[in-house]
Amino acid sequence: MTSFRVGVIGGGQLARMMTPPAINLGLTLKVLAEAEGSSAALATTMVGDYAQLSVVEAFAQTVDVITFDHEHVPLHILEALEAKGVSVQPPSKALAFAQNKLKMRERLGALGLPMPDWAEIHDADSLDSFIEAHGGVAILKTPIGGYDGKGVRVVSSAADAAEWLSPEGLAKVGGHLLAEEKVDFTRELAQLSARTPSGQFRAWPLVQTVQQNGVCAEVLAPAPDASEATLELAAEIARGVAEGLGVTGVMAVEMFETTDGRLLINELAMRPHNSGHFSIEGSVTSQFEQHLRAVLDLPLGSTQATDAHAVMVNLLGVDDQNDFLPHYEAAQSAHPAAKIHTYGKGARAGRKMGHVTVVSGNSEWAIAEARATAKLLRNE
Amino acid sequence: MTSFRVGVIGGGQLARMMTPPAINLGLTLKVLAEAEGSSAALATTMVGDYAQLSVVEAFAQTVDVITFDHEHVPLHILEALEAKGVSVQPPSKALAFAQNKLKMRERLGALGLPMPDWAEIHDADSLDSFIEAHGGVAILKTPIGGYDGKGVRVVSSAADAAEWLSPEGLAKVGGHLLAEEKVDFTRELAQLSARTPSGQFRAWPLVQTVQQNGVCAEVLAPAPDASEATLELAAEIARGVAEGLGVTGVMAVEMFETTDGRLLINELAMRPHNSGHFSIEGSVTSQFEQHLRAVLDLPLGSTQATDAHAVMVNLLGVDDQNDFLPHYEAAQSAHPAAKIHTYGKGARAGRKMGHVTVVSGNSEWAIAEARATAKLLRNE
Repeated sequence: MTSFRVGVIGGGQLARMMTPPAINLGLTLKVLAEAEGSSAALATTMVGDYAQLSVVEAFAQTVDVITFDHEHVPLHILEALEAKGVSVQPPSKALAFAQNKLKMRERLGALGLPMPDWAEIHDADSLDSFIEAHGGVAILKTPIGGYDGKGVRVVSSAADAAEWLSPEGLAKVGGHLLAEEKVDFTRELAQLSARTPSGQFRAWPLVQTVQQNGVCAEVLAPAPDASEATLELAAEIARGVAEGLGVTGVMAVEMFETTDGRLLINELAMRPHNSGHFSIEGSVTSQFEQHLRAVLDLPLGSTQATDAHAVMVNLLGVDDQNDFLPHYEAAQSAHPAAKIHTYGKGARAGRKMGHVTVVSGNSEWAIAEARATAKLLRNE
Repeated sequence: MTSFRVGVIGGGQLARMMTPPAINLGLTLKVLAEAEGSSAALATTMVGDYAQLSVVEAFAQTVDVITFDHEHVPLHILEALEAKGVSVQPPSKALAFAQNKLKMRERLGALGLPMPDWAEIHDADSLDSFIEAHGGVAILKTPIGGYDGKGVRVVSSAADAAEWLSPEGLAKVGGHLLAEEKVDFTRELAQLSARTPSGQFRAWPLVQTVQQNGVCAEVLAPAPDASEATLELAAEIARGVAEGLGVTGVMAVEMFETTDGRLLINELAMRPHNSGHFSIEGSVTSQFEQHLRAVLDLPLGSTQATDAHAVMVNLLGVDDQNDFLPHYEAAQSAHPAAKIHTYGKGARAGRKMGHVTVVSGNSEWAIAEARATAKLLRNE
């Protein structure tokens, strides 16, 4: 019997959103969740600690391939699985770059891929030198553990990061920090792509992301007014990253578009990503279906758009009461073409709890509809 | 807390295909399946006999509304639930017509809706009279229990249906048979629609169905070359049926288009239907999402097409070995835009085990792609 059993470590909304395409294709999805009642509870077959080798090994025995809802599984665990012959996609050697931004910058540099100037920071002096050489400001990042704006700050002198630079602070993040040039950008873009272990590669059209307080607020697909050359360049950058770092499955490359028209790599995510949620309705193959196909080394699906424009607006929690369901009536009644997604999460201010996508031939209409739907759901 | 808990009786592929939209919308789907390991196993919360009131009552206590994967739940059970205040959608008074084709014909006649000539048959004489009055041929149906060509035969004399007309045969089907005029049709059409308990109604574009051996083989959406008048008439017929019979949720009205251009109602299905599977990718709102919204009395979604054409080809089992998964590699490699669905069913010749949908601006291409994909999956 042919079986396609995908094991996902992590029970968040990304694992949840892999469930519909698994059902459609008749694949078997199994989730190792951190706790009962996760966002991916329906597909959860085991609850346990992904930092314990015995737990992850037991889970791996029930599936044909291991993949991820997040990038936090300790590398030594993945290496131990691989040593036993388990297919881990993306493999530990790729995830090493996702888990450590210094390693990522070094590798991208070796590959000659475009990115902001950067330096490894050990102390106040090295940071002040970098700041001085880059116009009096820098973006300082912890190389491990950051996400959604956490582990990132803008600094104009080493004094702005005193506790990170203290011996205790440095010890927590592996002894180094990463300083990056503060890029003069006109907008942020994201290039979604997928690659199989056999090396097949497909990119979606480049999208524009709109960040608010360091968190993705909206995605416009494709990126408005992007030239053919920019679209091609972005896809080639993603191919360079995927091939150069050995990434498999879906990957998002977040980029800055600079005032002088260059694309510079900001962050990488080696999994389905918020910037790709539009693809559920906006692409022939969604990022979640593609990820399952990619990690199983099945042929990749078409990434053609289903219409000229797709707009996604995130639903961030507004308080600890509103889980958006009480406002379905109002939102669906006023916006019958809006696709509302909620992730089964309890209400909490600022939490990513869902999103709305509108697909249309008319981008202004799509933006207005998606925003208005989200507004009604937030009860504004 | 607002909760949207839908309970589906029956664990077939229709319940299975309600799961993805339930996940997307953050609704709670619970399935009462006949056995473990059903097609809808992922959403199954109870296994038991839907013909036992105690089982169905216990299941109903866990949800906000009861709906169906099939039309076989005994009416007295649904009436008992309704008497206790359970929301049953479609309600028993509507399902009574789906479960008895004679009652359905009587009611459609009273509503003045277009259909083939028909008669209630008690004996050989009444059947021979009907045949004589209708050109020497009739379609004879058992009023209860038929589906996918079962319980239907073409007869040119009462002798062709001797065992159905025997006292034992008649007793099995409630004492009567249904004779229908053999309609001279050019093609078969299906009108999909949805209606809420509050009375909101939405129709999808009319589709053409292609039957082989009494089973749906292909669906072309929209029906090729249908005039504006035909599209409007079909939608109005569906509205007349839904309102006249008190149907809620998704309903499919199967129709004949006659050589002289009339539409005549053939069969009704008061649930998502094979003729509507195209809508998963081919419509802004799929029949499965719409059904969940309708039975919860939420506002209905847009039924606009996502592109000019959608073509669905059923995957019927070819033998007791091929469950189609071994041929994903070949099919996906050659047809990256095809959407393959399998239902998690064991292989059996003739069994409805999945379907393929292709959405495109070019109908000929969509037909060719969908058929070629299915052919590779069948390993032909």
